[in-house]
Amino acid sequence: MLVKEKEILLFESFTGGLVAPESDDNLLNYKFTWNPRNVVLAGQGGAAKFIQEGKYKYIPYNKLFRRTEIINVEGRGNFEGYANRDSLKYRSIYGLEDIPTIYRGTLRKVGFSRAWNVFVQLGATDDSYILEGSKNMTHRDFINSFLAYNPHDSVELKLRYYLKIEQDDIIWDKLVWLGIFEDTPLNLEEDKTPAQILQQILEAKWTLEPHDKDMIVMWHKFGFRVDGIDREIHSSMSYIGADQTYTAMSDTVGLPVGICTKMILNGTIQLKGVQLPIHKEIYEPVLAELETFGIVFNEMEVEPVLY
Amino acid sequence: MLVKEKEILLFESFTGGLVAPESDDNLLNYKFTWNPRNVVLAGQGGAAKFIQEGKYKYIPYNKLFRRTEIINVEGRGNFEGYANRDSLKYRSIYGLEDIPTIYRGTLRKVGFSRAWNVFVQLGATDDSYILEGSKNMTHRDFINSFLAYNPHDSVELKLRYYLKIEQDDIIWDKLVWLGIFEDTPLNLEEDKTPAQILQQILEAKWTLEPHDKDMIVMWHKFGFRVDGIDREIHSSMSYIGADQTYTAMSDTVGLPVGICTKMILNGTIQLKGVQLPIHKEIYEPVLAELETFGIVFNEMEVEPVLY
Repeated sequence: MLVKEKEILLFESFTGGLVAPESDDNLLNYKFTWNPRNVVLAGQGGAAKFIQEGKYKYIPYNKLFRRTEIINVEGRGNFEGYANRDSLKYRSIYGLEDIPTIYRGTLRKVGFSRAWNVFVQLGATDDSYILEGSKNMTHRDFINSFLAYNPHDSVELKLRYYLKIEQDDIIWDKLVWLGIFEDTPLNLEEDKTPAQILQQILEAKWTLEPHDKDMIVMWHKFGFRVDGIDREIHSSMSYIGADQTYTAMSDTVGLPVGICTKMILNGTIQLKGVQLPIHKEIYEPVLAELETFGIVFNEMEVEPVLY
Repeated sequence: MLVKEKEILLFESFTGGLVAPESDDNLLNYKFTWNPRNVVLAGQGGAAKFIQEGKYKYIPYNKLFRRTEIINVEGRGNFEGYANRDSLKYRSIYGLEDIPTIYRGTLRKVGFSRAWNVFVQLGATDDSYILEGSKNMTHRDFINSFLAYNPHDSVELKLRYYLKIEQDDIIWDKLVWLGIFEDTPLNLEEDKTPAQILQQILEAKWTLEPHDKDMIVMWHKFGFRVDGIDREIHSSMSYIGADQTYTAMSDTVGLPVGICTKMILNGTIQLKGVQLPIHKEIYEPVLAELETFGIVFNEMEVEPVLY
């Protein structure tokens, strides 16, 4: 076998749009910081696909939030990452066709996914059908529509039994806090999908207050071999927004676009046509200028554990 | 409130295409007796919808095979029924717009659904994407592609742990019998979807032998009130085919069509245009003639338990 001088062995990439620690005041450690509809629908429409040590791996939606990875981000503590829809297609985008391991995921604070999985298991994130009768339902009726009919048992006990939630499981406090058992009318003008209804219930709890700050966290792991020596580099970034309007989400999405626009106008970027920011000519000056805004990636080399 | 003279309170209808007891020689008590692809995809593409005592109920695909009802069919023992896709639409088809309870389901022998749920939970029934690399997989690789990567643990232990299957659970023998852990190559000409691959694996085990007999089982429950008195009627039918060619499935589907055709030709049926067989003019003579072929519904009135 011909030994390559340099070989890329692994790329893992996780990003989370979260609430900043100073504004994190709820049990789920989450607030909406971008399109809430996309958060409710996250992971739907096919299995998550990735490859690990040359083995293709597929996670169906109903297990997605139970197959999380724990990620420690320097200075920010532990997060959990669930797999994004299709990591495989990034092999060709990144020019890493033969990479044995590639995994892209989404970060949440630890414990979020187990709670979110309750909605997945109930079927409350489904956007594929209109829930007949929902116009006149309360939050409680909505949850009850996913539980067996019984004229005597409570919605609470039916849900605990169905999803095997123990009496002292913190997940229960999270669900109660979200208000899903309340007799609050949904007040819909017409029947809606489960996902639309769930979104409405969550928006009442997870909306950023005017003074709330959000946070973007990114974490990358690179594994590679140079002249037969395995190496591993971790790269992380976290960035906190100013308030409900000037969010970390809008800065990290908008600033690169603004910087690129400026560099196209002043001729720094010479590439023509529609381009992905995977060319050094684009990402090197953009990353450099992002540092002036406080968006900084910290890299560190660690002892390689390539599996 | 105006008391109606006659009121329909409940309609439940279950049907199963199964293997006859005399040809039932496997642990899952099942063989394919109609389109195998439809069996693998059963229940997909949206939640099961029904109404019970005026409460809308929705079961997502990932819970469909865990919310079964036990149905006893006179002379045939116990079956389990899982909900069909959309029972609600039959309210208008049957002219029962205001019925408080309507439920249509599919019958299997007891224990089938728990085992089938393993494939649902793994994601092995998914038909929405091509499983990259599947062309060169074995049965075992296929199952492993839905399990976490680990270079040491066995596929068996990973699956047991993932789906919490205890060491002495009979479900395990069913899975082993199906051959899903075998190193048998799939021998595909091209990569296929998980559902297509699962179908191929199952067809090797669940195909009717030339001498095998199949069985159709139907069970209906009618609840109604006449002059203030609640009544309940059960109606059941079971019919066994002759062999792999002359199946109960083909008889029960084909004979009504043949009888209708004859009755249209000889003028017994006067209805014009495309008609559903929900008119007395159609179903009464068809049911009568079906009895001459041994397809007989047995009705009995029972003490009403309308919930």
